[in-house]
Amino acid sequence: MKKYSIIVAGGKGTRMQSSTPKQFMEINGLPILMHTIDKFKKADSSIQIIVALPKNEIPAWNALVEQHGFTTAHQVVTGGDSRFQSVDNALQYIPNQNDCLIAVHDGVRPLVDTSVITQSYVDAEQYGSAIPTVAIKESIRRVTEEGNEMGNRDEFKLVQTPQTFRGDVIFPAFENGYIPSFTDDASVAEFSGHAMHLFEGNYENIKITTPEDLRIGEALIQ
Amino acid sequence: MKKYSIIVAGGKGTRMQSSTPKQFMEINGLPILMHTIDKFKKADSSIQIIVALPKNEIPAWNALVEQHGFTTAHQVVTGGDSRFQSVDNALQYIPNQNDCLIAVHDGVRPLVDTSVITQSYVDAEQYGSAIPTVAIKESIRRVTEEGNEMGNRDEFKLVQTPQTFRGDVIFPAFENGYIPSFTDDASVAEFSGHAMHLFEGNYENIKITTPEDLRIGEALIQ
Repeated sequence: MKKYSIIVAGGKGTRMQSSTPKQFMEINGLPILMHTIDKFKKADSSIQIIVALPKNEIPAWNALVEQHGFTTAHQVVTGGDSRFQSVDNALQYIPNQNDCLIAVHDGVRPLVDTSVITQSYVDAEQYGSAIPTVAIKESIRRVTEEGNEMGNRDEFKLVQTPQTFRGDVIFPAFENGYIPSFTDDASVAEFSGHAMHLFEGNYENIKITTPEDLRIGEALIQ
Repeated sequence: MKKYSIIVAGGKGTRMQSSTPKQFMEINGLPILMHTIDKFKKADSSIQIIVALPKNEIPAWNALVEQHGFTTAHQVVTGGDSRFQSVDNALQYIPNQNDCLIAVHDGVRPLVDTSVITQSYVDAEQYGSAIPTVAIKESIRRVTEEGNEMGNRDEFKLVQTPQTFRGDVIFPAFENGYIPSFTDDASVAEFSGHAMHLFEGNYENIKITTPEDLRIGEALIQ
C-alpha cells in the first residue's frame, strides 16, 4: 500500500519563551522539523511526506529550507486552528483513500526511532491502526473531587506518535467531525468505532515543547 | 522541626548495561548520588542526610567519597531487599520520632529542584505529607482485558520524590508492615489512613535508570 506521513507542526513557541515556533528551533544546527522529516525518509524513502504548517509560518519555513539546503521531498499544506483540523485538511491531499497507509506524527517528535515508524506501517496494514505506547515508569495518583488516591500505573500506557492508520479507517473517522475530548488521532478513530492496536514505542520519543526538552533533544539526537 | 532526608540508593545497574550501580554512574565527572546529596545540602544545610545503600556497595561508596574528596556530611546505613525495607531500616536511625520532618528521596533523582525540596518540608509540616507530582503531558490509554480505550489524563498525576512526611505520619505507617501493592512511600502512608497532600514538582526530576537518562541528566544538570 502507498505510504503517507502527515507531520503536524502547528505549535507556537510560547512555552519556549521564544518567538520562534518550536518546530523551527534548532537541534545541532538543524530545525527540529527537518530532523523529524528526515526520520520518515530514513525509515522508508517511498513515504510521501505532507507537512501541515500554520499559514503565516509557511514563508519562514520556505526560507529555512533554502537556508539549510534541505532537499528531503515534502509537501507543505496549511494547518488549521486545531490538530484535528490540521490533519483533516492534510487528508484532502491524499487521493487514493482506501488503498493507503497514513502515519500522523508530531513535528516536534524528532527522537522517534525509525524502527517504530517502520513497525507502525506494518501493524496498521494488518490491524487498521497502530498506536505506539510506553509504560508509565512513575507511580501515579488519581485526583478526585474529594482528594487523591494511589492509581494503578499498570492499567495505563502513555501514547506517542506516529499514530498510523489504513485509509479505510482514518478517512471515515475524520468525516465524522470533531468533539473536544479528542486528544489525539487514536481517539478520533476510536470514537468512530474502531478498536486501536497498540505497539511498543521508544521512550526517548518525547515532544520537544520546553527549553529543557530542547536540551534533552540535543543530548539524545543521533 | 528537625529535618531529615532518607536517600534510597538500592538499584542495580542492570538497565544501564553496566556493572556499576546506577547511583554511582557519573554525570559531569561526579557520581549521581553525590549530585543528589548536594541538592539537599544546598536546599537547607541543616538537613540531616541518611543514605541507604546495599551492604555490598558500601565499600565502593566509601572509596568514591575518598576519590572525589566528597565532604558533604551524610550517614550511610544498610538498605534492605526492597525500597520499603530500606526506608524502614533508615527510619530506625532517627531518634525523635514525633518532632521531625522526613523526606524520602530516590538516589537516582539528582535533577530535583532545591525549591521542590524546600517546599516539601514546609508543606509536610503543615499537612503531614507532601508529595510532588506533575501533570501527564501525553495522551493515555487504559489497557483492559478486552482491549484498550482512551483514558482521561487530567484524572491522574505522575508522582516523584522527595515524598516528605511528619514523623507522626511516617513512623506508624511503616510499623503497619509491607504489602506488595506499595509503589512508593505515599502509598504506605495512605494505606495507614492518611490523606496525601500533593504539590507541584519539577518536570526534569526524572529517575536516571537507562543510558538515555544518563545523557539527559548530563544535558540538564546545573
